[in-house]
Amino acid sequence: MAAVANLILVRHGESQWNRDNRFTGWADVGLTEEGVAQMRDAAAAIRAAGLEFDVAHTSVLRRCIRSQWILLEELDRMWVPQVLDWRLNERHYGSLTGRSKSETVQTFGVAAVQRWRRAYDAEPPPIDAAAAALVPLDRRYAALSASAIPHGESLHQTVARVAAVWHESIAPALQSGQRVLVTGHGNGLRAMIKIIEEVSDDDTVHLEVGNATPVVYQLDAELHALHKCALPILHRRPSEIL
Amino acid sequence: MAAVANLILVRHGESQWNRDNRFTGWADVGLTEEGVAQMRDAAAAIRAAGLEFDVAHTSVLRRCIRSQWILLEELDRMWVPQVLDWRLNERHYGSLTGRSKSETVQTFGVAAVQRWRRAYDAEPPPIDAAAAALVPLDRRYAALSASAIPHGESLHQTVARVAAVWHESIAPALQSGQRVLVTGHGNGLRAMIKIIEEVSDDDTVHLEVGNATPVVYQLDAELHALHKCALPILHRRPSEIL
Repeated sequence: MAAVANLILVRHGESQWNRDNRFTGWADVGLTEEGVAQMRDAAAAIRAAGLEFDVAHTSVLRRCIRSQWILLEELDRMWVPQVLDWRLNERHYGSLTGRSKSETVQTFGVAAVQRWRRAYDAEPPPIDAAAAALVPLDRRYAALSASAIPHGESLHQTVARVAAVWHESIAPALQSGQRVLVTGHGNGLRAMIKIIEEVSDDDTVHLEVGNATPVVYQLDAELHALHKCALPILHRRPSEIL
Repeated sequence: MAAVANLILVRHGESQWNRDNRFTGWADVGLTEEGVAQMRDAAAAIRAAGLEFDVAHTSVLRRCIRSQWILLEELDRMWVPQVLDWRLNERHYGSLTGRSKSETVQTFGVAAVQRWRRAYDAEPPPIDAAAAALVPLDRRYAALSASAIPHGESLHQTVARVAAVWHESIAPALQSGQRVLVTGHGNGLRAMIKIIEEVSDDDTVHLEVGNATPVVYQLDAELHALHKCALPILHRRPSEIL
C-alpha cells in the first residue's frame, strides 16, 4: 500500500470540548492530554503502514495545527511544508458554539437539535453575542470580507468551502504526484469524503469520522477512490499495556 | 516600537550540539531542555514588546522548526503561515560536522580551525563518510540538484544562499507591508545581518548571534535599518527566581 496511497485524512485528537460534549465549531480550544496521546498513536499507525506525505494541509484552529505538529514530529517529518487554510475549519455552529449538547436540547428541543445535526441544509441559529465572544475574528481571518464570514453554517455550506480548497489546492497537488496529509475536523472531513466518494447529501450527514483515526485513500488520475482503509491503531500507551 | 518594527530575527534555542560544543551545520539535532526554556523566554520578550508578525520563515532543520513552533504556540499565533527553506539552514561544516571543537583543534591545528571559523572565504574540509552519515540528504533536499548540494561551505557561500532567500522571499514580503519573523541559525543570521546592515566581509565573521535572543529591526522602504534592538529577556523560570 505504501507505494500507491496518496491521501491521508486524520481528524484532530480529542479536544477539550469533545471531552465536554460542547459544540465547538470555530472556537479555538486545545487538545486534551488524551487527544495528544491519540495523535501519537495515529502517527505510529502511519509509520507502521509505511506511508509518506509531501505536503500537509490543516485549518487555522489550534486543535488541528497541534495535531498535525504531533504527526510531523513523531514521524520525523517536521520539514514537510504545511498549508493552513480557514476553509478547512470546522463547520461554524452559530449560536450553538460553546453550548453543551444537553443544554442545547433543553433550550431548543430535541427535534431542532437533531435537524441542525442531521439535515444537510439546516443552518443553526445565527451567532449571538455569547457565542461571538468565543470566536474572536482575529488576523487569521483578515482575508475574508465581512460578507464572507459565516454566522452559522449548514453542512452544505461547509461542504462548499471545503470543495473550494479541494479543487484549488489539494486536487492539483495530488494530480501532480504529491502525497497529501490533511489534518481536519469532523465536518470538514465528512465534506472531503463526500467529494471524493460522491456520497449523497443525505448520507453525508451520517458519515462518522473518529478522532485521530487515519483514513487512507489510493486515488486514480481523476481522483476517484481505488482503495480506502482506516489504519489500525496500535495502542501502546503505558496505561493500556499494564 | 510595536507599530513600526517589521523584522524579528531569532536564533534557535540551545541545541544538543551547542551544549556539547560540536560543529553542527546540517546535522539535524534537537533542542536541549534549556533550549526549549530559552525559546519560551524569547516568546515572552516578543510578547512584552508588543510585537506581531504575519509570516514566519525558518530552515528545514528541527532545532529551528521546533524553536519557531514554541514561539508560535507561546504567542498564540499557531495559525501564522510558516515558510521553510533549506537555504536558511546553518552553514554546512563539511567534514567538521559532528566533531567537537577541541577534537578539531587536535586533528587540524588551532590555526586551521581559526581560519575555518574566522575567515570569510575559508571552506572547511569537504564532507567525509563519517560526517555524511550525520547529514542524510533525504526528501527535504529533493529540490537541490546534485551539484547544488554543498559539501562544506565558507561563510561567503552561506551568505550567497541566504541572500537569495532574502531577495526572493523575505524582502518582497517586508516591502508589501508584512511583518516577518525569521527563526534561524548562527551563521544564517550573521548573513542576514550582513545583508541588512551592509556589514563588511571581515566584520561579518565577528558578528555574534546568541541563542534565543530576538533582534528587532525597523526598516525603511529600501529595507535599510532605521532602528535595531535586542529584546531584553525576562528570565522567569522557576530555577532562577528561587
